[in-house]
Amino acid sequence: MEGLTIGRIHSTAIVSKSATLGAGVTIGAGTIVYDNVRIGEGVVIGPYCTIGEPIATYYRHDGYRNPDLVIGPGSLIRSHTVIYAGSTIGAHFECGHRATIRENTRIGSHCRVGTLCDIQGDCHLGDYVRLHSNVHVSQKSWIGNFVWIFPYTVLTNDPHPPSNLLQGVRIDDFAVLATMVVVLPGVHIGHDALVGAKALVREDVPPEAVVVGSPAKQICTIHEVRSRRTGEPVYPWREHFDRGMPWEGIGFEVWAKQSGFCTGR
Amino acid sequence: MEGLTIGRIHSTAIVSKSATLGAGVTIGAGTIVYDNVRIGEGVVIGPYCTIGEPIATYYRHDGYRNPDLVIGPGSLIRSHTVIYAGSTIGAHFECGHRATIRENTRIGSHCRVGTLCDIQGDCHLGDYVRLHSNVHVSQKSWIGNFVWIFPYTVLTNDPHPPSNLLQGVRIDDFAVLATMVVVLPGVHIGHDALVGAKALVREDVPPEAVVVGSPAKQICTIHEVRSRRTGEPVYPWREHFDRGMPWEGIGFEVWAKQSGFCTGR
Amino acid sequence: MEGLTIGRIHSTAIVSKSATLGAGVTIGAGTIVYDNVRIGEGVVIGPYCTIGEPIATYYRHDGYRNPDLVIGPGSLIRSHTVIYAGSTIGAHFECGHRATIRENTRIGSHCRVGTLCDIQGDCHLGDYVRLHSNVHVSQKSWIGNFVWIFPYTVLTNDPHPPSNLLQGVRIDDFAVLATMVVVLPGVHIGHDALVGAKALVREDVPPEAVVVGSPAKQICTIHEVRSRRTGEPVYPWREHFDRGMPWEGIGFEVWAKQSGFCTGR
Repeated sequence: MEGLTIGRIHSTAIVSKSATLGAGVTIGAGTIVYDNVRIGEGVVIGPYCTIGEPIATYYRHDGYRNPDLVIGPGSLIRSHTVIYAGSTIGAHFECGHRATIRENTRIGSHCRVGTLCDIQGDCHLGDYVRLHSNVHVSQKSWIGNFVWIFPYTVLTNDPHPPSNLLQGVRIDDFAVLATMVVVLPGVHIGHDALVGAKALVREDVPPEAVVVGSPAKQICTIHEVRSRRTGEPVYPWREHFDRGMPWEGIGFEVWAKQSGFCTGR
Repeated sequence: MEGLTIGRIHSTAIVSKSATLGAGVTIGAGTIVYDNVRIGEGVVIGPYCTIGEPIATYYRHDGYRNPDLVIGPGSLIRSHTVIYAGSTIGAHFECGHRATIRENTRIGSHCRVGTLCDIQGDCHLGDYVRLHSNVHVSQKSWIGNFVWIFPYTVLTNDPHPPSNLLQGVRIDDFAVLATMVVVLPGVHIGHDALVGAKALVREDVPPEAVVVGSPAKQICTIHEVRSRRTGEPVYPWREHFDRGMPWEGIGFEVWAKQSGFCTGR
Repeated sequence: MEGLTIGRIHSTAIVSKSATLGAGVTIGAGTIVYDNVRIGEGVVIGPYCTIGEPIATYYRHDGYRNPDLVIGPGSLIRSHTVIYAGSTIGAHFECGHRATIRENTRIGSHCRVGTLCDIQGDCHLGDYVRLHSNVHVSQKSWIGNFVWIFPYTVLTNDPHPPSNLLQGVRIDDFAVLATMVVVLPGVHIGHDALVGAKALVREDVPPEAVVVGSPAKQICTIHEVRSRRTGEPVYPWREHFDRGMPWEGIGFEVWAKQSGFCTGR
């Protein structure tokens, strides 16, 4: 379709001569690819994005060189998204519309970042992380693998705002944060933990704990959560859900053995 | 004004040959109208929108045909908005900037959807629905007529995230959800109910109930709510407010009789 | 860099003949500057913004004249931002991506408004105000000087939604509102007050009070808050933090004497 034809650079796109594009890259109308961006094979970028957005020093200093931005092969970046220079994004990344990803962020492979998400930079995301729409990830956040975060959840970092002391949140593998959770600075959420909708998380959450409320308190472990419909256990979710996961169709246990993946570090 | 002149297709707009445009349609700079979009008479679309955005299968399958998108006459769609293919939007629709509306959504007539709203698809909105800024409507949500939802409210759908079981929320006519409410999956909010700011709604809300808190509890009925300023009743709101409503200037009762509108179904 | 070269109007920008541009103004690709916008010296505007966005009457009445919009010198406006006609923004303003600022808003000097912020119009912001990402400022909000508001905080205005009675919030100098706070209509937050994350503020907050919870209750004064790390006091923040503030490098007390600034009005 005109405006976004797979395999074509749209005639109104603006691509720096110092950008590197893999085979079969698609770039939509009006999208700007700034200096020193390296885009992997088969990447699709929608219209009106800015990729390799200059960081703040561009506006303040002469002799600025745009830091490298790497976008892994097979990624899909939807319209109006802004990705800053100076980050590395793994293969098969997918994002919604109007996402923002700032500098010095490392994102693993197969991650999805929803519409309106705001990743503030100096962040780490592992592999297969799922951020639903409108998730706010403050600077210095550290997110493991297979973590799910639902809409309007905010990871904070400043214990005494405004201050110069930034303490990022840490979230371990397989943890799930439901809608509109706030996690306070420096909190560590253990692997496979489940944080209920609208929780305010002030203290560390043990692995496999279920916490709810404001402030969040542990009410049980994930093994005690049952489906209201079937009465069957539903967590750990990796034993019950596989869409888009590397164990799709074969089950987590088989995949973990085959791949040597080690749960919970 | 240049960039958005009423009655003109801007020279930088990109309009598919298979799109159908009614008389007097306005399309702003850079806006893309993809295949199989049908735009009603007098519709105004601001700059840098994408209308008829291809759904996910476009990126995965050859032989893709963009599903039809219908936008009713007299609608106003502000800049940077993304509306997916495969939805039907009624007459006199109005939206703010950067709204997102995904596929398989049915929207009635005279609805307003604010800046940054995110309607995730497979949704129903009746007539005269008002979503203020930054409302998140999950897949399978069902919203009746004359419903008001205020900023940062989230309608959820997944009882055991992540899962494949989606249970949409149902909100009946004239209900009001204040700012930053979360409604849990499958909850039914009755007609004329009022949900207070920051409530977490876990259970069904009876018609005309006022609920507040986290978890939300009923504190009274809407008939007991009085204006702090005047001491007079203020609900049901349709007896006290008419701006933009079909009973503007004549009152709800007169209009309901004239139109045969039946409250509360 | 192409797409955003400092000191240049990009060839794809659309600038009204009635706009006034100061020396050295930069305008990015595709940005639209509508009628009667006055842009100060050295202002940088990123790509795909709309500056001087026509207000609602443009779509309803012939003979519309776009109200004047003034943007002070040295400002930096990032991509996809929408600023309506009819506002005045002071010098050295800086905003993130996709901010929205509506009509009849007065913003002082040296303010920063983050990505996705939504200022709904008829608002006042003093000098050196800091809105982090995704802050929602309703119509008729009044914000003093040196106020900090963190992500997903909402200032409301309608005591009986939907109604025609709008009661804006008032926030005095040096107050700090943490993440995901909701302030109810007509509430007055005193100077130097600190509102904790996720608070629901229903009643006025005294100067220098610390309030937390839902509904928010005072737990102490700011003088009693100590750093978890050092055990030292951390508020009033102006005695401990100076980045980007006019007292940077000299301390608040020296600056206040030199400038004649009077705390707390």
